[in-house]
Amino acid sequence: MKFTLPIQIGPTYADVLVAHQRIKPFIKRTPVMTCESLNRIAGAEFYFKCENLQKVGAFKFRGACNAVFSLSENEAKCGVATHSSGNHAAALALAAKLRGISATIVMPNNAASVKIDAVRGYGGDIVFCEPTLQARETTLNDVISKTGATFIPPYNFCPVIAGQGTAALELLDDAPALDLLLAPVGGGGLLSGTAIATLGKSPTIKVMGAEPANADDAFRSFHAHTLIPQTAPNTIADGLLTSLGNITFSIIQRYVSNIFTAKEETIIRAMRLVWERMKLVIEPSAAVPLAVVLEHAEFFSGKRIGIIFSGGNVDLSKRFW
Amino acid sequence: MKFTLPIQIGPTYADVLVAHQRIKPFIKRTPVMTCESLNRIAGAEFYFKCENLQKVGAFKFRGACNAVFSLSENEAKCGVATHSSGNHAAALALAAKLRGISATIVMPNNAASVKIDAVRGYGGDIVFCEPTLQARETTLNDVISKTGATFIPPYNFCPVIAGQGTAALELLDDAPALDLLLAPVGGGGLLSGTAIATLGKSPTIKVMGAEPANADDAFRSFHAHTLIPQTAPNTIADGLLTSLGNITFSIIQRYVSNIFTAKEETIIRAMRLVWERMKLVIEPSAAVPLAVVLEHAEFFSGKRIGIIFSGGNVDLSKRFW
Repeated sequence: MKFTLPIQIGPTYADVLVAHQRIKPFIKRTPVMTCESLNRIAGAEFYFKCENLQKVGAFKFRGACNAVFSLSENEAKCGVATHSSGNHAAALALAAKLRGISATIVMPNNAASVKIDAVRGYGGDIVFCEPTLQARETTLNDVISKTGATFIPPYNFCPVIAGQGTAALELLDDAPALDLLLAPVGGGGLLSGTAIATLGKSPTIKVMGAEPANADDAFRSFHAHTLIPQTAPNTIADGLLTSLGNITFSIIQRYVSNIFTAKEETIIRAMRLVWERMKLVIEPSAAVPLAVVLEHAEFFSGKRIGIIFSGGNVDLSKRFW
Repeated sequence: MKFTLPIQIGPTYADVLVAHQRIKPFIKRTPVMTCESLNRIAGAEFYFKCENLQKVGAFKFRGACNAVFSLSENEAKCGVATHSSGNHAAALALAAKLRGISATIVMPNNAASVKIDAVRGYGGDIVFCEPTLQARETTLNDVISKTGATFIPPYNFCPVIAGQGTAALELLDDAPALDLLLAPVGGGGLLSGTAIATLGKSPTIKVMGAEPANADDAFRSFHAHTLIPQTAPNTIADGLLTSLGNITFSIIQRYVSNIFTAKEETIIRAMRLVWERMKLVIEPSAAVPLAVVLEHAEFFSGKRIGIIFSGGNVDLSKRFW
């Protein structure tokens, strides 16, 4: 006879609290900003957690920092490694530098030069590979078997999820009277961390996800109650191209109230509104929650809404409007 | 026999302190931000007072607010008026709205529609005129003789200067250990207010002006010890096109240590650096102090520098780089 015990999937609220203590000396306590003009436009009351002002320009530094500083001395000695060409790569490089260990980043040989420069600027070692998933994985495995480095995945990894949840902890400290909290969802690290933190700290506040309609695997997975991978995402929100992982999906399925999508033109409009009215540079992915509110006004009208501005890394030579 | 008594030119430090108490309920206490990456690039230690996050997106709200709330009940009844197509117009409109009085803004009939919309958005009444200085003045005089409104000049006016000085008061509260403080200079309201505030509060801290080389009347006037009007300014820093006034020039002549200029390409580079590294939208005029530091590195290297980001109102449909 077999007993099936309830299994804790992902980190606990206590893990988020511990992560916060662990990373506090290294992260920025980012401000929560308000904007009367955006409140008027949307007919809601916004509290924006400005992770675009976080180190490396994104919340990703929280998760990377927690993962790196969770390693034992013995593990840390051999360094860390990952494959990424985005904010996680830069975040891991800086976190490793702060612990005084090496970070090896496997990047496709067609990665944008600004991204390569960012990782190098934080002292990361780059190993280039062909731009295929298989080449990435093979190259990463090579690096790990040669160096003994610990692989730090970008989102489907408990220490990373716990770290990302610390942004919501701070937001709920500064703006405790919210009705709901909206986070963008790509791989689901931020949304699942946010859900765990909010359930632990302020269980009456609902947590919801915001996703581009053109990369809506989380939306579809959530409503189908099964993990549906993203196939051909096509969105300006380039931080949200990835699919959910099994851990992040389980957490989201359990603790998130709903997932909404927004169209490309609304994402661009929301991004421009934030640049114009708040004088803050946010990246397209960070504009998706506000876009969702603008597009589903009947649902969000009159509510007190916390929004995590996930990052501010944009290529300014690009034209967005 | 005649005695010539020393005359106080412009507001006193006490006027700035009173202004601060007067406008505190209406202004935003804007944050002072730092940026390791800009410190590294310039080899200096920066403290940025973010008046781009001020109401109406510029420090101008401080001066307008002080002027409007300094009026007696009797004066206030008839409203206020000015000619301007920039931040002062929007600032005066909002300040008047907060006091519940009317603001009439004389604007050239070729003013940009974003500026017209901003003034209207804050409830200002616009009277259009031909785009000449003479038409502006005639139209303004007409408005005043009809309505009895009080003229609130954009910079050469003591209550406005005292109000602008309050930004430096707050900066010196948050970052007391500066070597020097840099403010952009156009009409000189911000720079002269900053000088009076700093001399009163922290007299060992030097105050310096930053001006586009392509609109350098303050630089030339300062070094020639006589007021030389600007003739054909040609700069992206469109908030700094005006000449000094007699009051602002006298204050600057007495209390400012030096004025530096910066080239157009350095202003654009500085602006882009702030957008990219600090994730803050600042207007070209606000980038001039940082541009001055980048261009005169030998002078500023190793110093602790306060900089006032004067505003963040840019037309995002424009291409800057």
